[in-house]
Parts: sequence; C-alpha cells; structure tokens
Amino acid sequence: LKSKLPHVGTTIFTVMTNRAREMGAINLAQGFPDFDSPELLKELLAQKTSAGHNQYAPMIGESSLREQIARKMQANYGRTVNPEAEITITLGATEAIFSAISALVHPGDDVILFDPSYDSYGPAVILAGGRPVHIPLQAPHFRIDWQRVREAVTPKLRMVMINTPHNPTGMILSGDDLNQLAEVLRPTDAFVLSDEVYEHMVYDGARHASVFGHEELYARGVVCFSFGKTMHATGWRVGYAIAPPDITREIRRVHQFNTFSIATPLQLAIAEFLKQQPSHSNELSGFYQRKRDLFLRQLQGSPFRWIPSEGTYFQLLDFSGISSVQDAEFADIVLRSAGVASIPVSPFYQSPPHLDVIRFCFAKKDETLIEAAAKLRQLE
Amino acid sequence: LKSKLPHVGTTIFTVMTNRAREMGAINLAQGFPDFDSPELLKELLAQKTSAGHNQYAPMIGESSLREQIARKMQANYGRTVNPEAEITITLGATEAIFSAISALVHPGDDVILFDPSYDSYGPAVILAGGRPVHIPLQAPHFRIDWQRVREAVTPKLRMVMINTPHNPTGMILSGDDLNQLAEVLRPTDAFVLSDEVYEHMVYDGARHASVFGHEELYARGVVCFSFGKTMHATGWRVGYAIAPPDITREIRRVHQFNTFSIATPLQLAIAEFLKQQPSHSNELSGFYQRKRDLFLRQLQGSPFRWIPSEGTYFQLLDFSGISSVQDAEFADIVLRSAGVASIPVSPFYQSPPHLDVIRFCFAKKDETLIEAAAKLRQLE
Ligand SMILES: CSCCC(=O)C(=O)O
Ligand SMILES: CSCCC(=O)C(=O)O
Repeated sequence: LKSKLPHVGTTIFTVMTNRAREMGAINLAQGFPDFDSPELLKELLAQKTSAGHNQYAPMIGESSLREQIARKMQANYGRTVNPEAEITITLGATEAIFSAISALVHPGDDVILFDPSYDSYGPAVILAGGRPVHIPLQAPHFRIDWQRVREAVTPKLRMVMINTPHNPTGMILSGDDLNQLAEVLRPTDAFVLSDEVYEHMVYDGARHASVFGHEELYARGVVCFSFGKTMHATGWRVGYAIAPPDITREIRRVHQFNTFSIATPLQLAIAEFLKQQPSHSNELSGFYQRKRDLFLRQLQGSPFRWIPSEGTYFQLLDFSGISSVQDAEFADIVLRSAGVASIPVSPFYQSPPHLDVIRFCFAKKDETLIEAAAKLRQLE
Repeated sequence: LKSKLPHVGTTIFTVMTNRAREMGAINLAQGFPDFDSPELLKELLAQKTSAGHNQYAPMIGESSLREQIARKMQANYGRTVNPEAEITITLGATEAIFSAISALVHPGDDVILFDPSYDSYGPAVILAGGRPVHIPLQAPHFRIDWQRVREAVTPKLRMVMINTPHNPTGMILSGDDLNQLAEVLRPTDAFVLSDEVYEHMVYDGARHASVFGHEELYARGVVCFSFGKTMHATGWRVGYAIAPPDITREIRRVHQFNTFSIATPLQLAIAEFLKQQPSHSNELSGFYQRKRDLFLRQLQGSPFRWIPSEGTYFQLLDFSGISSVQDAEFADIVLRSAGVASIPVSPFYQSPPHLDVIRFCFAKKDETLIEAAAKLRQLE
C-alpha cells in the first residue's frame, strides 16, 4: 500500500497522551485543560440541543456565531470584518489550516514553515502537492531570522505559514516581525497562513500582533482561530478562518466538500456565551499567566532552566543542567522516573538539531501544577 | 487567484436551502428532518457535557462509540470488526470520504464515479490530483452498466466509488451488483470507497447489501457511515469510516491532520444512546417507508410519475407529463409557483443528459409532506 505520507507516524500528542494514560502519569503533554469549560457554556449547549437545534448548520457557519466573532475582532483589533464574506466556521483551527492549504497550495508550490512547526502543517502541504521549505527558528529565543527568509523566496513561493503565539516554544511575533514579513512578501504573490489559536494568551503585558490587524498582510492572509482554547473546551472542535473575500471563496470551495458544516448546537452555544460574556476572552491572559507563574515558582530549586513563555499555554524547560541526551529520550526519562508526561520538540522539526528543551502544558488545575512540579524537582 | 476547483460553485444544497428560506418555501431540498432528534439523545448530550466530557476525544474516536459500532456491525452483517484497528470516527461521512480519498488517491490515478454522484466526490478526487472517470447510471432505474465499468478499467484505476442506497436516485445495489464489482476489480489493485450513509433506510423488504458484508470487496474497501442520518441529527456531524487495518492506517494519517478528532460530548451521547436503544436503527426502514408511502399517496392524481424509492430518504418525481424543460429549470418553477424546494439531479453529473426528474426529501413531518404534496398536485 503506497502511502501518501510515508514518513508520518501517529501524531506525538496521541502517542504521549496514550503513554501517560497507560502509566498513570500526570499529563502535561497534549494541550488541554484538566479543569472544565464554563458552567454557562455547558448549560447553553443543553439548552440549544433541547430547543431542537440539531440539524445542519449553514455551510459557512451559524450567522449568530460569525457576528459575535466580527464584534470581537472589531473590539480587539479595531478593524471591521464582514461575517458573510470573510468568516468560515471550521472543525477547530486544524480543519481551517488543512482546508486553506488544500485550497491555496498547488502542486509544485513552495511553502515556508518555521521549525519547530506544528505537526499538521507539513503533511497538509505535502498532500496538496506542495513542497515544505523548513526554516529553523533561532535558539534560544526561537526568533525568525528574516535574512534566511529573504534568501528562501523563489518564484515558486506560494505561502508562508506563521504561528503566533508559537506552539511549542511560547515565542510571540512582534509588530516589527509582521512588518518584516510584509516587506519580504511585497514582490511576491504568496499567501500568509497565520495560526493564532493562542491569541488571548500573551503574558507580561505584551499585546498579540495579529495578521488580521495588519492591513497589508491581511490582504494576502488567512488567520486561523480556535474556540477550543478560549472556551477551555478543546473537545468541542469549533474554530474559524478569517480571510479576505476572494481567499475565503477558495477556502469554502474545499471546506464544503471536506467537512461541509460544523455541529449546530455547539456553534449556537458558543455564540450565546460570547453574547452573554463578551469580556471572557480578555481575562484569559491573566488567568493563564498566574498558572505559568505558579508552575515556574514551584520549579525554583529544580535543575531545570527556562525563559518564561511569552504566550500559548506551554512552557519550555531546558534540561541541559541534568542530561545531555536528545529531547525525546529525556521526555521519556521524565515520564518514567518522575511520572510526568511532556512533549519533546524534535518531532516538530524536519531535521532536528540537538535539543535540550521539552514542552509542558500549564493549562491545568493549580493542584496539578504543584504536584507535577514537585515530581519534576526530584529529577537530578 | 488561481482556483484549485475552478468549476465548482456553492454546493446545490446550500443554494436551495437559502432560496427556500428567502422565499418562505417548504424545504424538501437539502436532506434533513424537520422533526427533532430523540429526546433521549438530547438528554444524554446534556449529561455528557455537564459531567465534564469537553476535552479532546482520542484521534481515532471514543472507544465506547467504536465498540457500539462494532456490536451493531456484528448484529447486522454477521462479521466481526476490530474497533481499534478498523473504525475511525469522522466529521460526518463527508470527512470520512474526503480523508479516505486524500489518503488513497495519488496524482494521476483514475477514480470511477457513477453519475449522478454526490457532489463532494469529484472535487475530493481532483484535490488529491486524481482523475474522476464518470460513468452514467442507466435511466430510468439508474442501474450500473457493468459492461461499461469493465471497459473503463485501466492500469491507472485506483478506486471505484459506490453509493448504496443511492443519493439522489433512491436506487440500491444488489448482492449481485457487489459480486460483479468484485469480479471487475479482481485483476486490479483498486480500492472500493462505499458511501452507505442510508444503510438503515431500505424499503419494501429489501436488505441493504454492504461492502462491509462482502468479504472480498471489504479487503479493498472503505465503508462510510453517518449518525446524522440514523439519529435524525444531521447537525451533529458525526460519522465513521470502516476499513481493514492497513487502509485504516492511511486514512488516519490524513484524518489526524485534517480534523484530528470529533466532538467528545456528541460522540459519548451517541455511544450511550446506542447502548440504551440498540434496536433504534432497525426501526428506521419502517419509519421512513411510511413517510415515503404517505408522500406518494398524497401525490396521487398529480401529473408527476414515479418509481418508488428503494432506499435513502429521497424520492425522484418524473415531471415529463408537465414540462419538457431541463430539471434545474423545472425545480425553479416548482419553487416559485408551488412554493416547494427540491433538488435537481443535473448538478450531480459531469455531463448532464436531458433529465426530467427532480429530488424530494421525505424525512419530514407527516403534515409537511401532506402540505407539500397538496401544493405539488396543483402544478399542471
Ligand atoms: C490536536 S491535539 C494537540 C493539542 C495541541 O495543540 C498541542 O498539544 O499542541
Ligand atoms: C451536506 S448537505 C446535503 C445533505 C444531503 O446529503 C443531501 O441533501 O443529499
């Protein structure tokens, strides 16, 4: 059986969650909260299903949800978005990214990815017949080296994928980074696909710089978001893509045959929640910064080192003071000897360098973070 | 902006549902019930979300749901399926079909489709770089001409897509059809992708012949199903693909990066429903046959003619006694002068012949069917 993705195994998130479960370990690997979604959201779901909202949603998404998104974008980025022509509700940001790549990347096109890059990007490009061009971020701060980007621009360049706040590193792009990207792309007709699922989780007073808020980039942009993150409901699988009308038209041509439409009662519950609690997302940065700080405080005195995460709900810990093995092996040691599951960073590289950081998810109850940190402190 | 699907417009289902809404017409176009899902199912959803099942489901689907599916397949087709290695929960059958095609069809491969074919098949094949080879079904019964299939087999043949019970025609394949297909494919290494979302809606005592129940075909098969149809919950978007382990492995390689996983509380509610009401699906054929018969009885005395639907919840009506225009134009006349929305059949052809049938959905309340038929009787 000739595989279309011969080099792809089961995603690391599934592998580590399964191993954590088998070993009864604390799961700080896959990114999801171990606390529940807001009570109001769950009640609204019960209301919407009981009121009979159980048949097909519109292919582009429920209008009430698209309108709430438009309101939120206006409030956060000061720009108007047309909910009819520019917003498409998708099966999480995952499908938004997959459908956008399927719609926009033609066989033979080059797509720039920055490594470490989320593990769905490369396979989606390959399935579309494109060629992923992997540019590593610069350790230890995982910044983009714009000179390398300029050198990678060829007439075949069709898309640049960015991710800010960045998973798995916690790095965020600055407004200046976006300006640099705009400049690099000015002579090309390449798209920018921007994965911004952690938009509401940025720390230490930083502001999220969105491609949506950058007029020049947005003109060639697709921006992908996720309610799974902002609603503490990763299992609901509702996300969206925002893009100018001509790009949205192409994304929908794929979306309508890939997934057609997203679960109606879930969409309506989220729309109503956003209406009743319009400031919910503004509280997330504070909420998660406290969790990050708690986790790092509890790690004081451990042999780990760190640069505090700038965004996302992930924290990299540098283990070079403990061991010089490769990161995947060290994640395995941590799982087996401390009983804490983490995610190595090397699976997110095409050609992994030597890495001495592993990723921990701090979207967990305070008790979980305290208990995990206590176990991690015992590593030597 | 160079489109990957230049010949594709908005799907006819969305177009007709939007037009029905604008005109206040009775919508017998898009296939969904105008009655609600079972109360028990909705209560179970409220229970599952309230109990905190709101984070990522396993990538392959919740084990409780896969186990219920395995039980049902055993009961209905007398064959064992391994829920771990052969069942994948997807975003409706739509994603099952899209992910399977993405995973199995390579650039340059031929894929046989029978026209009229569901409108997602062709675009999915094109996006995978394949070539759809369209073979028209034989009017008026829309049977497969196996001689034409034999003639269409080339070394490039990679897949044959079938759909039984067949949307939009209501035709079902017989056990003999499956044997013919097995014979045609014996010298090839082509896959069979079988869309069987209406498996539980077959009429007049017929039995559904499934590729899953056909050992030889299943060895090269992917069989796609949908809870949207069987649970009267088209808006929940939960379906599944069943395939032998080596094929399932390839489908999951795509599924994990396309949609990753399907909404947890919806999966768990369906699993629990199937456990509590294991015979629910056995009652569907009777339930929908009564609706078909009611609709057709009410049409007695109208100038339409018909062959009663053998399966699905769709009925074709032949309008050649009323008009000789093409079907799309006639659907428009019916919408505007009778206030009933239907689906023309020509959008499901690559090269539509002259067609004098349009499709009506009878998954509607009895009152709706009676009212719609009364309006249709007035057409002359
Ligand atoms: C889709 S499972 C992975 C969740 C996630 O985004 C992460 O852990 O990085
Ligand atoms: C995905 S919307 C179309 C529903 C359907 O299967 C049909 O009407 O044929």
